[in-house]
Amino acid sequence: MGGAPQAPPPISAGARGLRPGCARKAGRAGGYDVTMEELEHGLLIQPWAWLQLSGESLLAKVYITTQKGYALLLSDLQYVWHEQVDTNVVSQRAKELNKRLSATPSAFLSHLKDLMCTLLEGSTDTKGATFSCEHMPDGLTLHVRSDLSGLPFHWNFQCALASPSMVSQHLIRPLMGMSLALQHQVKELASLLRMKDAEIQDYQENGATLSRDRLKTELFDENVFLEQFVTEISRGESKRKGQLNGCVSTPSPERTGWGLEMDCPFSWCPSWAVELTDLTWDVVGAVVAGTGA
Amino acid sequence: MGGAPQAPPPISAGARGLRPGCARKAGRAGGYDVTMEELEHGLLIQPWAWLQLSGESLLAKVYITTQKGYALLLSDLQYVWHEQVDTNVVSQRAKELNKRLSATPSAFLSHLKDLMCTLLEGSTDTKGATFSCEHMPDGLTLHVRSDLSGLPFHWNFQCALASPSMVSQHLIRPLMGMSLALQHQVKELASLLRMKDAEIQDYQENGATLSRDRLKTELFDENVFLEQFVTEISRGESKRKGQLNGCVSTPSPERTGWGLEMDCPFSWCPSWAVELTDLTWDVVGAVVAGTGA
Repeated sequence: MGGAPQAPPPISAGARGLRPGCARKAGRAGGYDVTMEELEHGLLIQPWAWLQLSGESLLAKVYITTQKGYALLLSDLQYVWHEQVDTNVVSQRAKELNKRLSATPSAFLSHLKDLMCTLLEGSTDTKGATFSCEHMPDGLTLHVRSDLSGLPFHWNFQCALASPSMVSQHLIRPLMGMSLALQHQVKELASLLRMKDAEIQDYQENGATLSRDRLKTELFDENVFLEQFVTEISRGESKRKGQLNGCVSTPSPERTGWGLEMDCPFSWCPSWAVELTDLTWDVVGAVVAGTGA
Repeated sequence: MGGAPQAPPPISAGARGLRPGCARKAGRAGGYDVTMEELEHGLLIQPWAWLQLSGESLLAKVYITTQKGYALLLSDLQYVWHEQVDTNVVSQRAKELNKRLSATPSAFLSHLKDLMCTLLEGSTDTKGATFSCEHMPDGLTLHVRSDLSGLPFHWNFQCALASPSMVSQHLIRPLMGMSLALQHQVKELASLLRMKDAEIQDYQENGATLSRDRLKTELFDENVFLEQFVTEISRGESKRKGQLNGCVSTPSPERTGWGLEMDCPFSWCPSWAVELTDLTWDVVGAVVAGTGA
């Protein structure tokens, strides 16, 4: 591992509103050696975005570097697909798909980068480009049509099913880290609310009154909060798609921890919470970071 | 699909402290037809638990029914393994592993259920049973040793890599649902805190004072809260395992939304948040529920 490769710019670098992998200029001076490993790393630190294609919603993240190739992940939350290619593959596929177009791989990659960034930024103006996806046995192809130098340009991102370790790295671990961090935030905020209530109570006990009644808040009760929260979501869910499959939609007053541990208000939200809150950050951190407990 | 199968008892049913799949008595009167599909469904609504085996931490969920078989999922957050077997397999494997023991599949399953529930409940008293796991090419075997009717009892849960759709159903979608729900909670709690502050400010503007200074709270600022939160976690993380690979550990003041969208404070927590907060519940619900957007 000698001579650590230079990392791509961190996520929040670059102009606001521009997606990190979409920065039009390299964040470092001079060309740096982007290996396949760097494509992998580049992809790892990209954020996910939600693609709305005709008739299909997909999560997507992409890392394109004009000098070396691209890496792409797509998921419909049922499957995860992946493609990672270098400039040789880009060059060959570009010739196959665009017989009348002659350009360097770098020019094709630059154009693909522009197109994909526009798509991932959710811009409504795709500059005449169209995107569609096609499910194949064990794969998914994202077709792109646009213009390049006044000629039609076609590209197919030919994704295969992602490996279990990619699914873990890009989805399971980040989501688990995110859930744990958010649970921690919820606990902290609940604790702050109890402190606010103690302060308010002290004012009231000393005879303070409000000038405007509408400013009066109710004592925060975490159980009531969770109950209301779940009832609200269950109601919204039920309204939208009728009865939820296999799950009880009325919340139970029994609850042992933060989160949504109860009668499974969503078919897609079983009782993670109790289990997760039992974990310590050290244990989870060690496991999530792959260092063992 | 005629004659909807009776669902297993909901998650919060049963005695407190007992895991749902671990209820010693069936939640419904009379035997009901548990098909492989029901084993799948039974497993789906089980909560995950954290197993601490010697030298290894695993997430696990299990559904065992003495009449029909069991379904088991294990994950080290890198891979997910699965086994689902009916009574025929139980009977055959029991004979192979326990030549001196003669019992019905139902008796073996009942014993396995007791053992696994003890393990998943995190009880320190495993009644003399020992558990160990062995990584195989493309699989994981969980070895169990205990006593049954005074004789040694051996069992191997022979798990293969779980299919992408199982990983999605049992991990990705629940985690995504959980993250979204928790983000929603964080927003609601922040909103409550601002209301408390408005109430407190009104008391103060009307000349109210505190009898105990220590009850004074600071005005809630969501940006400061997130900053402190991430700094704290980054510090804890850095202390624990030095520099995090590939990620900037100092938080950036730039932040556009709730959650952890910033300089990737964890290697396992990229900037999901902004993307997720951009989603509406309807879109996500539709996609997560597999109905398309």
